[in-house]
Amino acid sequence: MRRLAAAVGEPITAIDTPALIVDLDALERNHERLLTSLSGLPVVLRPHAKSHKCPEIARWQMAHGAVGICCQKVSEAIAFADAGISDILVSNQVIGAKKIQDLCDLARRVRVGVCVDDLSNVKDLSATAQAMGVTVEVMVEIDVGAHRCGVAPGADALTMAKAIAEAPGLIFRGLQAYQGAAQHMRSQTEREAAVGRAIDLARMTRDMIVASGIPCPVIAGGGTGSYLIEAKSGVYTELQVGSYIFMDADYGRNDWPVNGMPAFEQSLFVLTTVMSRAVPGQLVVDAGLKASSVDSGMPLVADHPELRYVRASDEHGVIQYDRTHDQSLSIEAVRLGQKLRLVPGHCDPTVNLYDQLIGLKDNVVHRILPVSARGALL
Amino acid sequence: MRRLAAAVGEPITAIDTPALIVDLDALERNHERLLTSLSGLPVVLRPHAKSHKCPEIARWQMAHGAVGICCQKVSEAIAFADAGISDILVSNQVIGAKKIQDLCDLARRVRVGVCVDDLSNVKDLSATAQAMGVTVEVMVEIDVGAHRCGVAPGADALTMAKAIAEAPGLIFRGLQAYQGAAQHMRSQTEREAAVGRAIDLARMTRDMIVASGIPCPVIAGGGTGSYLIEAKSGVYTELQVGSYIFMDADYGRNDWPVNGMPAFEQSLFVLTTVMSRAVPGQLVVDAGLKASSVDSGMPLVADHPELRYVRASDEHGVIQYDRTHDQSLSIEAVRLGQKLRLVPGHCDPTVNLYDQLIGLKDNVVHRILPVSARGALL
Repeated sequence: MRRLAAAVGEPITAIDTPALIVDLDALERNHERLLTSLSGLPVVLRPHAKSHKCPEIARWQMAHGAVGICCQKVSEAIAFADAGISDILVSNQVIGAKKIQDLCDLARRVRVGVCVDDLSNVKDLSATAQAMGVTVEVMVEIDVGAHRCGVAPGADALTMAKAIAEAPGLIFRGLQAYQGAAQHMRSQTEREAAVGRAIDLARMTRDMIVASGIPCPVIAGGGTGSYLIEAKSGVYTELQVGSYIFMDADYGRNDWPVNGMPAFEQSLFVLTTVMSRAVPGQLVVDAGLKASSVDSGMPLVADHPELRYVRASDEHGVIQYDRTHDQSLSIEAVRLGQKLRLVPGHCDPTVNLYDQLIGLKDNVVHRILPVSARGALL
Repeated sequence: MRRLAAAVGEPITAIDTPALIVDLDALERNHERLLTSLSGLPVVLRPHAKSHKCPEIARWQMAHGAVGICCQKVSEAIAFADAGISDILVSNQVIGAKKIQDLCDLARRVRVGVCVDDLSNVKDLSATAQAMGVTVEVMVEIDVGAHRCGVAPGADALTMAKAIAEAPGLIFRGLQAYQGAAQHMRSQTEREAAVGRAIDLARMTRDMIVASGIPCPVIAGGGTGSYLIEAKSGVYTELQVGSYIFMDADYGRNDWPVNGMPAFEQSLFVLTTVMSRAVPGQLVVDAGLKASSVDSGMPLVADHPELRYVRASDEHGVIQYDRTHDQSLSIEAVRLGQKLRLVPGHCDPTVNLYDQLIGLKDNVVHRILPVSARGALL
């Protein structure tokens, strides 16, 4: 058994590093801010669990207004079902016989949804669901501007909806219309324009499907960067926000709060230790690429805007002093062994590096939260 | 229990994805190439286990010429000691009471070395080693150009060597003089210049220490990009190569083979499945940021130079067709569900995303290798 970075009851200063810590009060406040911002709007909340991969957080979200969760992988969904989550949308395509079998097997015990963007996949899902005697609810994913997965809105989506509606073992649930590319557009104006186009495409496609006699009850999408635009659209019915509970440096660069979007606060940090001060003019911390994902930029040093994390290698981060900030702390004042909190560049892949989230209240370890779906790739 | 991506005896086509696969014959050939290139040179081999985090590979390296291994974290070292590796250098600073205690505890059962670059750390290590009745061998890390950890070569290093030599519970073993910045310089000329300076600094420091009456038997360093330069220096005595067994896209951009440096071949791949073809002109595969680290650039599509992995999100990779390549395979010819091999941008942090390495021989699953030190951060 590997030693844990912390034990319940210890102060933050006793946590060994690098460790992933979460301020549970801040996390709860973020969720309340989300609910408040959605008050009175005709949407339900199905948070994305790929961000936290943590059943305890999913159960807490379910107890506080969520109707279910999203997962991105079947193996992730299984981890959450094992922990008692009973309504899971795999907001992604599930390709390949083994995964489809796992998905249908999961449908024996929880409500399962999945997305499709290919007719052959509809056929495969139907055949397996039928053979296993289960029902899977299927969303047609449409490409509303992110240009990743999804059929073209309109006629192609209608063809697919019809195929699903006619396929034994499958139920057509609606449209997956996530505009992922809009989430990190920096200005609200850009986000509103991009999501505005997505709303038009989703509405047009929904109307076409409904006009053909197929009910299309769910229009799903919306990430942390844009969800309120979808929520107010009158088109979207289900939101899939994930990062809002944690936040990260990349989301922090969006212009918030604006137009009713609340100021979510950073609740997730990588706690790190200064492990070298030998090279003049810099610090080295013990959190590198294996402790904080850099795909969306370097981590930020929390609490100390004058310290700049400039370079990551596998197990090291180099921090320099930014002289444009006139703060009391200088590189010279930081001692060997001192702990610093880093704001990860991108929360989701950073969480995926850890087996535990260390939940703090008032800077004391309140509980250790297993990241049960960490590494659930299949 | 999570379903594994593969079972022994299955063909590569049956492996579920994303999965980390390694061509065991290619891995063995890389190790033989390394040994051949070092033949007759007065250096020993202490491969870096942070690359593979896999005890089975470490044991195989020990059985084929390695005198021990390097680790970068104490928790990593514990995982390898648990698997029977008896000589481990933590080629890094170990800061903090808990970690120092773990290190000294480890010294009860295996030969343990560690690096220092701060006098207060020497004092802490000595106090704990003495209290626990163990001996720890200590290397002074010098900054030979990578500007990460390490004291200045020369007088500062001598001061530290003296402190170690006089400290109860510690033995001064030599100098850690790794030129990490040289490894990915693209031309051999640049690498030779950078490592040439490192050699001069290491020699000068060693001579100063020896002249003061302290034996300095080990000069350690050398990565996959430069090791032969160190090996031929007459100064370095111990090599710490890690990536050579796997290789990656970033190392692939170095100009090799040259000046006796062998052409290591790619043995490590992320196996991925085409999961969407719905957006015209591109493919989407099921390996994104959580399946292949992008810190050193996007993965490459093996076997198909005309396919270009252009964008990664958490669980998706977008592949486009590069029309400058006149190959038979086009985007249109790749079917949904087809598997592709990706060359990771950077091997070490990619391995750290997986619980298992799937070892292949002749494209059949030969053994499943647990990545036991995956996530060993402390």
